[in-house]
Amino acid sequence: MKTLVIVAHPHLTNSTTEAFLKAAAANENNVIWHELKAPFDLSQEQELLKTATRIVFQFPMYWYSAPAILKQWLDEVLDSRITSNQILKGRQLGIVTTLAHSASAFQPGASQQYTIAEILRPYEALAHSLGMKFLPPFPIYQFAQQDDVERQLLFIRYQQYLTVNNFLHFSNRTQWFVERLNDKINKEHDPLQQAKLEQLLVLLTEQQEELDDLHASIGWLRAKEDE
Amino acid sequence: MKTLVIVAHPHLTNSTTEAFLKAAAANENNVIWHELKAPFDLSQEQELLKTATRIVFQFPMYWYSAPAILKQWLDEVLDSRITSNQILKGRQLGIVTTLAHSASAFQPGASQQYTIAEILRPYEALAHSLGMKFLPPFPIYQFAQQDDVERQLLFIRYQQYLTVNNFLHFSNRTQWFVERLNDKINKEHDPLQQAKLEQLLVLLTEQQEELDDLHASIGWLRAKEDE
Repeated sequence: MKTLVIVAHPHLTNSTTEAFLKAAAANENNVIWHELKAPFDLSQEQELLKTATRIVFQFPMYWYSAPAILKQWLDEVLDSRITSNQILKGRQLGIVTTLAHSASAFQPGASQQYTIAEILRPYEALAHSLGMKFLPPFPIYQFAQQDDVERQLLFIRYQQYLTVNNFLHFSNRTQWFVERLNDKINKEHDPLQQAKLEQLLVLLTEQQEELDDLHASIGWLRAKEDE
Repeated sequence: MKTLVIVAHPHLTNSTTEAFLKAAAANENNVIWHELKAPFDLSQEQELLKTATRIVFQFPMYWYSAPAILKQWLDEVLDSRITSNQILKGRQLGIVTTLAHSASAFQPGASQQYTIAEILRPYEALAHSLGMKFLPPFPIYQFAQQDDVERQLLFIRYQQYLTVNNFLHFSNRTQWFVERLNDKINKEHDPLQQAKLEQLLVLLTEQQEELDDLHASIGWLRAKEDE
């Protein structure tokens, strides 16, 4: 799977959040990091779109939508060459958006009044119109206030958002960790560290097998009930 | 009441819809017609905002939101000089948007899947955030396919959207007609035409009085029921 991250930020060089996310994306082989700069070379932008299975719009939320440059890109790049041939049909659309408010502010009665799902509805409508699968959005709340542990978790989850198929499924996220651990073990030179990592790998794999067994049993019991 | 119509259209001179709406707005004394052109003089734009009780964003719908130029205007003009002093608090925000699809397309299961209310949610959130009153939007569906009668009705309703207080209230719209008729009668030189218009005025006023009486009676009956 190839992922195209379309970054729309008018002050990119000043953004610590974007620098953080860029570092996380840089570890990934199948991720293309694409920072929007007007004017656009339409053919080039359209070719880039064609290479990706997952397309991610990434932006700070300004007045309840992306900065103007993403809208300009949509208005210009998604012309009849994209729409009439249904070029994007079946591909995925993800949204990574950074917000100045806390998660709890986005609900009726709270300061922002509307949910993230409501605010992002136009992008969901866009995905629907292009025949794309709209992925659950990835909002990042108040990055500046996050501590080290929160940021480490964000780093991993963001990488998963870009690269894991069906990332909401727990077992797919485990599989992702197994692959990463294997990779780390192969590159590790210290035998003690290597042994520790292998222990962790065994533990993770065993847990996953047990979970798979449980899921299979539940499926079997349910099937019996239906008879 | 002063109304500021902020027109965001990248190909304004080619748009028959905008030319039609501009002609309707031109009849109104208290309406300022403002076509967006970048780059913006921020102070000038902000001064213009301060003059208006009702602010109307007017645009063709591109990919489920306004063309990029309106977003650019929002991102740049609504800076701390507007937000920190709550300049727009208590004012009204209206939306006039032209759509290529029919009204029936905007519902679950139909081609556009989402309602106009859902698609315009970010503007509602904007109004909420600025302390503005969000007016019921004024969508114009498939203008090119409208016949003469539909367009005459649109012409009047659009003028009302720009100028009538609480335009959803029937009696306010009647009041608007009474004022317009009075104006027309004063300017009419042909006595026969003048007499006809006066007859119409009497009819309209009588109907309105009857309606007011009925409403009062209903109110009185309901109050009795509650006792």
